[in-house]
Amino acid sequence: MKMSKLVSKTRKEAPKDETSRNAQLLIRAGFIHKEMAGVYSLLPLGVKVFDKIKKIIKEEIEAVDGVEISMTALQNPEIWKASDRWDDEKVDNWFKTKLKNDADLGLGFTHEESITNMLKDHVNSYKDLPLYVYQFQTKFRNELRSKSGILRGREFLMKDLYSFCKTEEEQLKYYDLVADAYRKIFQRVGLGEKTHYTFASGGSFSKFSHEFQTETEAGEDTIYLDTKKKIAINKELFEDEENIKAAGLEKKDLVEKRTVEVGNIFNLGQKYAEAEGLKFKDVEGKEQFPFMGSYGIGVGRLIGTIVEVLSDEKGIVWPKEISPFDVHLVILQNDESVIEEAQKIYEGLKANGIEVLFDDRDISAGEKFKDVDLIGIPKSVVVSKRSIEEGNFEVKDRKTGEMTQKPFFDIVEGDFTI
Amino acid sequence: MKMSKLVSKTRKEAPKDETSRNAQLLIRAGFIHKEMAGVYSLLPLGVKVFDKIKKIIKEEIEAVDGVEISMTALQNPEIWKASDRWDDEKVDNWFKTKLKNDADLGLGFTHEESITNMLKDHVNSYKDLPLYVYQFQTKFRNELRSKSGILRGREFLMKDLYSFCKTEEEQLKYYDLVADAYRKIFQRVGLGEKTHYTFASGGSFSKFSHEFQTETEAGEDTIYLDTKKKIAINKELFEDEENIKAAGLEKKDLVEKRTVEVGNIFNLGQKYAEAEGLKFKDVEGKEQFPFMGSYGIGVGRLIGTIVEVLSDEKGIVWPKEISPFDVHLVILQNDESVIEEAQKIYEGLKANGIEVLFDDRDISAGEKFKDVDLIGIPKSVVVSKRSIEEGNFEVKDRKTGEMTQKPFFDIVEGDFTI
Repeated sequence: MKMSKLVSKTRKEAPKDETSRNAQLLIRAGFIHKEMAGVYSLLPLGVKVFDKIKKIIKEEIEAVDGVEISMTALQNPEIWKASDRWDDEKVDNWFKTKLKNDADLGLGFTHEESITNMLKDHVNSYKDLPLYVYQFQTKFRNELRSKSGILRGREFLMKDLYSFCKTEEEQLKYYDLVADAYRKIFQRVGLGEKTHYTFASGGSFSKFSHEFQTETEAGEDTIYLDTKKKIAINKELFEDEENIKAAGLEKKDLVEKRTVEVGNIFNLGQKYAEAEGLKFKDVEGKEQFPFMGSYGIGVGRLIGTIVEVLSDEKGIVWPKEISPFDVHLVILQNDESVIEEAQKIYEGLKANGIEVLFDDRDISAGEKFKDVDLIGIPKSVVVSKRSIEEGNFEVKDRKTGEMTQKPFFDIVEGDFTI
Repeated sequence: MKMSKLVSKTRKEAPKDETSRNAQLLIRAGFIHKEMAGVYSLLPLGVKVFDKIKKIIKEEIEAVDGVEISMTALQNPEIWKASDRWDDEKVDNWFKTKLKNDADLGLGFTHEESITNMLKDHVNSYKDLPLYVYQFQTKFRNELRSKSGILRGREFLMKDLYSFCKTEEEQLKYYDLVADAYRKIFQRVGLGEKTHYTFASGGSFSKFSHEFQTETEAGEDTIYLDTKKKIAINKELFEDEENIKAAGLEKKDLVEKRTVEVGNIFNLGQKYAEAEGLKFKDVEGKEQFPFMGSYGIGVGRLIGTIVEVLSDEKGIVWPKEISPFDVHLVILQNDESVIEEAQKIYEGLKANGIEVLFDDRDISAGEKFKDVDLIGIPKSVVVSKRSIEEGNFEVKDRKTGEMTQKPFFDIVEGDFTI
């Protein structure tokens, strides 16, 4: 894509009311637009990163048999009253609205109730279970404060997966499968080393749930990490020595870390099935409530975390798999001959399946290089009069700053690690 | 995909409160779930059809240089007050909600104001124009009544495209390009013959806008069609003979048709740019307001229209390009040998890039054939003991009912028109 067609412009300053580093960088680099605190639109660069993350999540969730559905934001109060989560005293971050006839509606902050209610039309027998459904869907959460950029949105895209199993054993087995799928996801988006499987409270239906917590000073959470076992316990559980033991940890091995929760997984038991009346007939024809699990990853929060963890003083540093483009192509002089050569490289790379952002703007080389660093595409290729004469082009690695010289044909064939 | 993993079940009856044929069929066949009037979730089959339609729209909109963005549902009242569209007296289908501090928010029913406001950060010069941005985004419209299934949703996915041009001439040229892109879209989804370019009121900034109106008794609109010119005029304009002439039509050539509006395109002049204060510097450095156009297709409404127009008494009939699967594979007897042969065909088709829904359920052949007709995949392949013996398999066309016999290898290689 040519930068002249990109719609967004980079900028030197983020809006004054934006205090989070993730949103500051993403706004300055032209990935997102701030509508209000906690509410961000996506510019074309942002759409590209979201699409890449969604693709990774989709692949890993479908590898554990997740089937895609899409539920609605508008929520009927009745199904939430059934589980006692309608009242604002019980759930303090509802956005609510009204139909013309004055009937109340909610905007979904999660979808356990909706999916359980929906499945009453589709689950009758043990033959229908287990089943696993997931969606990428916009959640609305009426946060009192929202100062962490896209780490805590009032409106945000979430991948939520729900499992329904015949027995608790079947559910627990699937829970571990999803934990593994999550590990793969965080690995692929570049957060593997800094993301820790963390014991958290299980609520009323199971002893523990688990969070995936990523180390960053921008996080709002605190965990206690056993760096050898690579397992952590969250702050709430850490208070009680019993919990530390039950998690198989010892207090003396634990180090305090500031983190952000990038994923969570819950065993929900039969709570929602009972509340909504979702039953199946077992092999003997007896009615049973299925065992349920729910598993969430906030897509925006994940991207915000990647920006917090991987950026440097010059700008964003995207990991290869989620970068909006593979290569940032820059011309040093805005001359006919240089543009022509760059155009050939652009076409050659595209023909080899490499996604290129081609800076064809009529601005100074210095400004272009600043934008290369700010936008954070892993590799850049510089075309100049000299490089054309010498037949060698500069390839720069955004992360390491390392420069290598590559001949024209290696470049157009994408013959460099991207 | 195996039907045992499809999550949804077909059903004989739609919910009693569902009176529209499109939603009745889509619910019975397991594509959608009714949350409440005008609010429908998507089951896996529904997600597949939505994805295929989105792919077609994306291809045609990107072919006219549309660049994808994604704006938010939550709307800041200020930008709507600027254009005088915040007041419920002015716009009667807002859903509104509140932040914790009691500040009002809207849920976007369209996005002219948001995109115009956003571009103030990204448009400065004539060099930045023209630009074309589009999104697939959920709109919320607080309809007083919602009885037409997915033809008129209170929450629905819309493709909206916005253009910003330097001059009126540039804008009018792009308007015609989008009209052509829309014709291609309606052609590809199977509605080409029944969809008519229709003159509609242009509002205060241009004489006409245009609607794409599809003939169906389920529609809420009336148009007057010149069947030779293949151009129509809507009811509002038809009242005034002047308009008919201005549209290049003659009253005596016009036939009344019941229709549903599947797309619309507007020239908006400088109205929103003026309201929001979006300016650019022209070649002479003088500040100007850009000319704007907006172009919408409701994805759910489009699917509902396809179901209304193309279904028959047995169920849905999907056009090839948007069917959730290419082939519905059915086994006549639930025998080991038949299942094994069907499995080979299943794998063979998949290996040849053909998407297959394999009915592996342990139910009667009669029930399976009913579901083949209800779900509406263009081709079905039947595997039976006899077909295995004879080495010939029955391929049935959902639309025409035509049966052809094909040998095993032709089938697994997908060597039949799908």
